[in-house]
Amino acid sequence: MTTGVVDDTAVHESPTERAEAAFRRIAEVDRPEVWITLRTREEVVADAAAVEARLAAGASLPLAGVLVAVKDNIDVAGLPTTAACPEFAYTAEVTAVAVERLVAAGAVVLGKTNLDQFATGLVGTRSPYGAVRHAVDPELVSGGSSSGSAVAVALGIADIGIGTDTAGSGRVPAALHGLVGIKATLGIIPTHGVVPACADFDAVTVFAAEMSAAVAAAAIMAGPDPRDPRSRRWPADVRLAAPARARLAVPRADDLTALTPDYRAAFADTVAAARAAGVATEEVDISALLEAALLLYDGSVVAERYAAVGEFLAGSPASADPTVAAIIAAAGRTTGPGFADDMDTLARAKAAAATALRNFDGLLLPTTTEHPTIAAVQADPIAINRRMGTYTNFCNLLDMAAMAVPGAPTPRGNPFGVMVVTRAFDDQVAIDLAARITTAIGPSSVDTDAPADTEKQSRAAGRKRSRANSHNPSRADTGTPVLVGGGVELAVFGAHLRGQPLHWQLEEVGARFAGAVTTTDAYRLTALDTVPPKPGLVRHGAGLGAPIRGELFLVSRAGLGGFLAGLPAPMGLAPIELSDGRAVIGFACAYDAGRAGTDITAFGGWKAYLQRQN
Amino acid sequence: MTTGVVDDTAVHESPTERAEAAFRRIAEVDRPEVWITLRTREEVVADAAAVEARLAAGASLPLAGVLVAVKDNIDVAGLPTTAACPEFAYTAEVTAVAVERLVAAGAVVLGKTNLDQFATGLVGTRSPYGAVRHAVDPELVSGGSSSGSAVAVALGIADIGIGTDTAGSGRVPAALHGLVGIKATLGIIPTHGVVPACADFDAVTVFAAEMSAAVAAAAIMAGPDPRDPRSRRWPADVRLAAPARARLAVPRADDLTALTPDYRAAFADTVAAARAAGVATEEVDISALLEAALLLYDGSVVAERYAAVGEFLAGSPASADPTVAAIIAAAGRTTGPGFADDMDTLARAKAAAATALRNFDGLLLPTTTEHPTIAAVQADPIAINRRMGTYTNFCNLLDMAAMAVPGAPTPRGNPFGVMVVTRAFDDQVAIDLAARITTAIGPSSVDTDAPADTEKQSRAAGRKRSRANSHNPSRADTGTPVLVGGGVELAVFGAHLRGQPLHWQLEEVGARFAGAVTTTDAYRLTALDTVPPKPGLVRHGAGLGAPIRGELFLVSRAGLGGFLAGLPAPMGLAPIELSDGRAVIGFACAYDAGRAGTDITAFGGWKAYLQRQN
Repeated sequence: MTTGVVDDTAVHESPTERAEAAFRRIAEVDRPEVWITLRTREEVVADAAAVEARLAAGASLPLAGVLVAVKDNIDVAGLPTTAACPEFAYTAEVTAVAVERLVAAGAVVLGKTNLDQFATGLVGTRSPYGAVRHAVDPELVSGGSSSGSAVAVALGIADIGIGTDTAGSGRVPAALHGLVGIKATLGIIPTHGVVPACADFDAVTVFAAEMSAAVAAAAIMAGPDPRDPRSRRWPADVRLAAPARARLAVPRADDLTALTPDYRAAFADTVAAARAAGVATEEVDISALLEAALLLYDGSVVAERYAAVGEFLAGSPASADPTVAAIIAAAGRTTGPGFADDMDTLARAKAAAATALRNFDGLLLPTTTEHPTIAAVQADPIAINRRMGTYTNFCNLLDMAAMAVPGAPTPRGNPFGVMVVTRAFDDQVAIDLAARITTAIGPSSVDTDAPADTEKQSRAAGRKRSRANSHNPSRADTGTPVLVGGGVELAVFGAHLRGQPLHWQLEEVGARFAGAVTTTDAYRLTALDTVPPKPGLVRHGAGLGAPIRGELFLVSRAGLGGFLAGLPAPMGLAPIELSDGRAVIGFACAYDAGRAGTDITAFGGWKAYLQRQN
Repeated sequence: MTTGVVDDTAVHESPTERAEAAFRRIAEVDRPEVWITLRTREEVVADAAAVEARLAAGASLPLAGVLVAVKDNIDVAGLPTTAACPEFAYTAEVTAVAVERLVAAGAVVLGKTNLDQFATGLVGTRSPYGAVRHAVDPELVSGGSSSGSAVAVALGIADIGIGTDTAGSGRVPAALHGLVGIKATLGIIPTHGVVPACADFDAVTVFAAEMSAAVAAAAIMAGPDPRDPRSRRWPADVRLAAPARARLAVPRADDLTALTPDYRAAFADTVAAARAAGVATEEVDISALLEAALLLYDGSVVAERYAAVGEFLAGSPASADPTVAAIIAAAGRTTGPGFADDMDTLARAKAAAATALRNFDGLLLPTTTEHPTIAAVQADPIAINRRMGTYTNFCNLLDMAAMAVPGAPTPRGNPFGVMVVTRAFDDQVAIDLAARITTAIGPSSVDTDAPADTEKQSRAAGRKRSRANSHNPSRADTGTPVLVGGGVELAVFGAHLRGQPLHWQLEEVGARFAGAVTTTDAYRLTALDTVPPKPGLVRHGAGLGAPIRGELFLVSRAGLGGFLAGLPAPMGLAPIELSDGRAVIGFACAYDAGRAGTDITAFGGWKAYLQRQN
């Protein structure tokens, strides 16, 4: 029995061993401000033992023993939910859907973590439970509002951290700690059981040291729930992969002036790494996006925060954070017509963003602008926080997905985070590209000997990077992990194989490579007289052909239908028997055309035939 | 040269003759309040002559010579837009996208029509240009807010009327005049060039005497425009037809108490007619929908009206309608948090509506509650108007499509209107079912000898009905007209033919019957040993088979992909050559399986083979 896919450093630990280790680590790091409610060691170990029992009974638990830190604005049955305001606290009767799904998959909840009160902030300092200090340098902010969940992961206590993200709360702390932060398209992960910040713009997010762990958890949390009225399904034409030759928009220098010089250099290095990894980049004017971002707090949209907790705060609870209380009190003074005006502005900004990104797979952005000290933020609690949300604030307002990953480190070797931001529902495209960029940067680019802001921070960056790259080689074979499921299998045997002239047709519909396949011996392959040259796979009957090699892809239903609609004779799509006993839809050729071609069955596949010819 | 598809009564008229006739009718009816800006006879005839010239030059103009009345909150270049408030007027420089598309298709604009000021009302009395009197009984209201456009059609002046519909303005006047009113899903017809009422909930609509004319115009107006940030595309899995065995939800008696007794009887008769026509109906509790409807005016959503024209009205223009001005002034006092609360309520109501209609193709509702006199409405301008919107108000708020058609007439022979309301994007399902119900009711059910509220009204009802049923028989062959385009063709030859055991699989994905087809003589048909029995169509080569009869369907890309993904061997889908020279995707059988079956090519088709067997 080992823990699930999440943390390879713990791959040899059993769930109970992992739980025990977490409590040793909690004692070791002495960061009490991370937790608002930490469950007892006994409770957690008992849950881990129950997971072991389920495994022993044969249960399939993809997150077996994975330790989860849950932001304290998300309900866990039996534990108080405070949203970082003691007077607001209630004991949850039902676990939030997202967390419930993790637990059903074998995860174990460690406790509830500190946050910027009512998820209002990006700094991690706005809490009566104490400012959450950065995992490595306690004088620096952790980032927020999902501060405790991120730090619990960064400190190696939890395997994954669950946060929420309205303005950037699930991405900024990831950036400051060299973590991955997944903010899926709004509605993909249900928000049932979450204290609303801005109900229309709230997302549940996940932090992890590695993309694979974050995506595995997000995939389990995703999917509609009838209790969440804002649940959304993947559309029928959802893209399941980024194309090999991806195109990312990047901001012009004029749109990067909010960054510190170190961050500006790190962003340039990240863009260079992306290009070196084969991602085409092109500068675009993103000022319209940055302007739309201002609506989140400066406009009337913040009225949703008042709708959520304004009346409660109007009672002046003693532990209200003064900055949070002031923001939400101001939200109470917004007007209906002002709100309507802002919704109109947002509709226009959303359309403009779609137009700006029309020719791109996504947008590569810095996640945040700087890494301030706690003291600096406390001295100026509004302006720094506002600046830190420059690049994150607009995503949910404009209905975009955003995957935060470590970028190239700063010149002094500190962590720097970037986001791949895409249109709604292009989450898998964002994940693939974010993974590609992070992989391209790799651990070697972190110079742990370079002068750092703090030496500890530099060491931490190196440690994170090496953890992030220590993943199981067997996983690398199947590529980036998958959030967007539900594709239909399609087997190809000729010009649509990777590297062949029609492969772009699969990329265009977002098809995802899913491995090599071989047919049964019922098929014969012929070389057809077509342009470009294609083979024809024809079923002759069991034993009348030979196993033929091909490639399997996953594609959306609409992608498959559109692909079929454009298919020229003599090609068709039909169930193909594979050597593993399955039947999948794949290319089949009309018998008469196949008979007219040259029989190349003996080569066992189109690529072998092409190579033999050369 | 004849007018387009719209009005068969004018089918032998040329565009200029039609224009001349319209001006004779305008003089005859003496209803000046219908128009705010009527173009001159000379201008309109000149435009009609230009259409004739385009036709003579070979242009394909599906709406050639169709006369259009445009609600005066929609821009037509060169004409003033008043929104029924003289002080608000401006001369439009650009024609609204929707109208521009009609004109490009050969339609000719007659002028701009009266409306409830700023499209705020369902009665047609709230205008300084005069209350718009009902087309038949001038003491009754016309319905609003698109009053003039509806009356211009009902009086036989215009072929189609263009309106807008936020709360029911494109449906209530249709109901009161026995017209068809198409309110497509929000965003399908661009609202660029329309004075907003509630920008997030405004739709451009069309009135016509017949469904075919209304849908033809709507189809031409539909499609995204980059200038409309709320434009939406049909989703990749859009349904293209209602199933043969459709299921409609109908309200319980408790939800129908707002109707007059006459309307209640007419609604019961309409439901009975729908059932007689093979539509299954089942009562559901729609009280949640009716509650959500109240948010449009009683909540904060009305703030969008203030955002649109509130500041203008705050200047107290002399010609402001006092009722409209009072509603919008109150909207100015809504709060941001109140708006946020209402958006949350709406999100929940939308999810609840989706759940309530999960097992239905749509909802059959009365369009409005009563047909009041102008005097009654003027004596009580709020309450009657509010009641009249009981069944229309929620549609746009909850993102639903609604097609208004004549229902069974009242016991006294007066017009009564119903709506088929569906989920967003199920517009074609709504159109098909609305057409099925209206056709089922037919003209014979209008007893023109029965006592009527007014004798004239009864005669008018009869006239409308006979117009509505005088359509070209050749059109009936191809079924209801199509708003939702873009389907992929799929030819079937066996168990998926209409009436055969697997046809439901096509219905399930919303496939639309598109006619009979025949293959070239390259195909042979065999009877396979499958359950249910199926034929296999196999291509043997030109001249080596015989023409085989099948049926053609249109299906969404996702529908086709899903269909393919579920296909069992030995079936496949491939391009099939048709006798008309085209190739379409259709069923093809693996050669080896086909060879193993009994050759039935000589029957020329599966149905002929099945009949021969019996």
